[in-house]
Amino acid sequence: MAFGWIDEQAELRRRAGLVRTLRPRPADSPLLDLASNDYLGLARHPEVTEGAARAARVWGGGSTGSRLVTGTTGLHAELERELAGFCGFEAALVFSSGYAANLAAVTALGPHGSLIVSDAGNHASLIDGCRLARGTTQVVAHADPDAVRKALHTHDGPAVAVSDTVFSVDGDAAPLAALAAACRERGAGLVADDAHGLGVLGAGGRGAAYAAGLAGAEDVVVTVTLSKSLGSQGGAVLGPARVIDHLVNAARTFIFDTGLAPAAAGAALAALRLLRREPERAERARAVAGELHARLTAAGHAAVRPDAAVVSVRAPSPESAVRWAADCRTAGLAVGCFRPPSVPDGVSRLRLTARADLSGDQIERAVRVIGETRP
Amino acid sequence: MAFGWIDEQAELRRRAGLVRTLRPRPADSPLLDLASNDYLGLARHPEVTEGAARAARVWGGGSTGSRLVTGTTGLHAELERELAGFCGFEAALVFSSGYAANLAAVTALGPHGSLIVSDAGNHASLIDGCRLARGTTQVVAHADPDAVRKALHTHDGPAVAVSDTVFSVDGDAAPLAALAAACRERGAGLVADDAHGLGVLGAGGRGAAYAAGLAGAEDVVVTVTLSKSLGSQGGAVLGPARVIDHLVNAARTFIFDTGLAPAAAGAALAALRLLRREPERAERARAVAGELHARLTAAGHAAVRPDAAVVSVRAPSPESAVRWAADCRTAGLAVGCFRPPSVPDGVSRLRLTARADLSGDQIERAVRVIGETRP
Repeated sequence: MAFGWIDEQAELRRRAGLVRTLRPRPADSPLLDLASNDYLGLARHPEVTEGAARAARVWGGGSTGSRLVTGTTGLHAELERELAGFCGFEAALVFSSGYAANLAAVTALGPHGSLIVSDAGNHASLIDGCRLARGTTQVVAHADPDAVRKALHTHDGPAVAVSDTVFSVDGDAAPLAALAAACRERGAGLVADDAHGLGVLGAGGRGAAYAAGLAGAEDVVVTVTLSKSLGSQGGAVLGPARVIDHLVNAARTFIFDTGLAPAAAGAALAALRLLRREPERAERARAVAGELHARLTAAGHAAVRPDAAVVSVRAPSPESAVRWAADCRTAGLAVGCFRPPSVPDGVSRLRLTARADLSGDQIERAVRVIGETRP
Repeated sequence: MAFGWIDEQAELRRRAGLVRTLRPRPADSPLLDLASNDYLGLARHPEVTEGAARAARVWGGGSTGSRLVTGTTGLHAELERELAGFCGFEAALVFSSGYAANLAAVTALGPHGSLIVSDAGNHASLIDGCRLARGTTQVVAHADPDAVRKALHTHDGPAVAVSDTVFSVDGDAAPLAALAAACRERGAGLVADDAHGLGVLGAGGRGAAYAAGLAGAEDVVVTVTLSKSLGSQGGAVLGPARVIDHLVNAARTFIFDTGLAPAAAGAALAALRLLRREPERAERARAVAGELHARLTAAGHAAVRPDAAVVSVRAPSPESAVRWAADCRTAGLAVGCFRPPSVPDGVSRLRLTARADLSGDQIERAVRVIGETRP
């Protein structure tokens, strides 16, 4: 029977306790949210939701086509201009998702004959980009500029190193300046995914590359998402104009995808303007993460010191991590639960996200619940 | 210098006349639109744009996380239920784009050790799905069930055939019933991308699989996009509940992507309800395509008989196709222009899309402009 093998895999998952199910949330969840990536608390901000609503009314429910045909509106151009300007890059290109932006950047900048050096802890979308790219990929040790340097030395010709700036699972930061230096020694480019850095790191949330003094560099390309700090949906690639022009001409997930919906562009633009006006939101997200970490550590949890707004807490096993997260939920607290196969190192953990709009009381409550439900 | 090779490629493109540039359109373009994929004319429909606006207000500007963490809302569940019901399938799963839905379906249903039989004319997203999948891909002749049958006979074990239902470039339909029969002989599954069929083909626009009597079959999986007939953004996979559960657990572009923005889900849901209420829109889109084709053929153009709402008109060369489309534009008509490398057969053409809301006068004007600007 077609798809018969699916049932066998489902049975294996059941036995291993690794079944994933969808749990639709209501519009006004009573849970305290430490699970979303809404780092600045902007997804429900009236200016952001009004930005979405207005854009839908003015520009339509969808962009109606590929960005190369009818899918580019004045709104897309405005968002790209402001996003590039904010992050300190010459140009930007907006995609329907961060996933698509990463596939585009890696495939278009890792052509046949090139070397792609990829951090072992990179996000699935970067890994898929490496697998789709025509170049050869070499996976190197996590957050290790020397390993990147050595890999680049094995190759003559075009090369890029590819890394998350903040790794989603443990919340640790890449040594971005050292990576860029290693790349420069060999004339290689650097592609950095700042999904978890934009809005959190750098002055006023301008991102990890800005913080590392790499914004606008001719050999650095940054990808971002509009769906985390900016409370919307979509992704973007930031870089030199010539690189962006290249993506317009060569990136399949740009050319053959429908342009980002106007409402998503409008929401992201509103969030970006809000962040410019209230730059302290970025600092506050980092401070909340620091406070969460300090309190959890003081309570004896194995929490990883956060470099941005993700706080990771180790759990003894996949089963206990699932139970822990479920018990938190029962006690009114939503936390993420990462376990195999979503974790590169096989270690299960609770994943907490700091939000700029969490109050001191909420932080205290979260830490209390996590302690009380500890396996 | 990093990315130095980009300039050489740009120069080659310039010399070949193949440079692509973005042309942002205003909110109220004076052009007559025969270029977008807004087949039912719903992208600007007030019910659809209000659906987007309301969803953003109620649910937020973004879904805030992976569908497996915080990114599944009651609205997503509602859209999935209604979409599956409308198209006649047991279950549906919504993605941030049709591209992501295709990557998910092909990779999750083409595992290691399996055979994926792929039509030579398939969309880029299906091709990328084949390249990402761990199974072995065999590309077969375009729209040829016998070629699929032969390919399936070379393999024991899990297998799927993968095909567009309506091919985007020429607007021709796949022989879906015959493909399904060829798959059944070998116990293989069929994955059909109905991006250009949903809303246009089948009773009331229920799609190509419904029209072919394949809706709800246990060995058929259909992918759709929310960004064409439904005037929004996003994609979905429709199929048996066990296949959908498998995707939730195994599809990387589902697990590691942020959920579709509420506004896009709300717009698609409003469009779907509108289509249920006004099923004649689907028939009207097909009738407009037929009339366009008849008039163009009568005027001596090499137009391909449309199986859905895409009408393709051959051009003598890439350069003349570009000039033709530009001249149409100057005369107030937006048409698509497909040329290498976006066309699998190397033939350049104008690509016209029928919209259900085109009037007789607009059709006449479009045909007149195409004739007057003919190279």
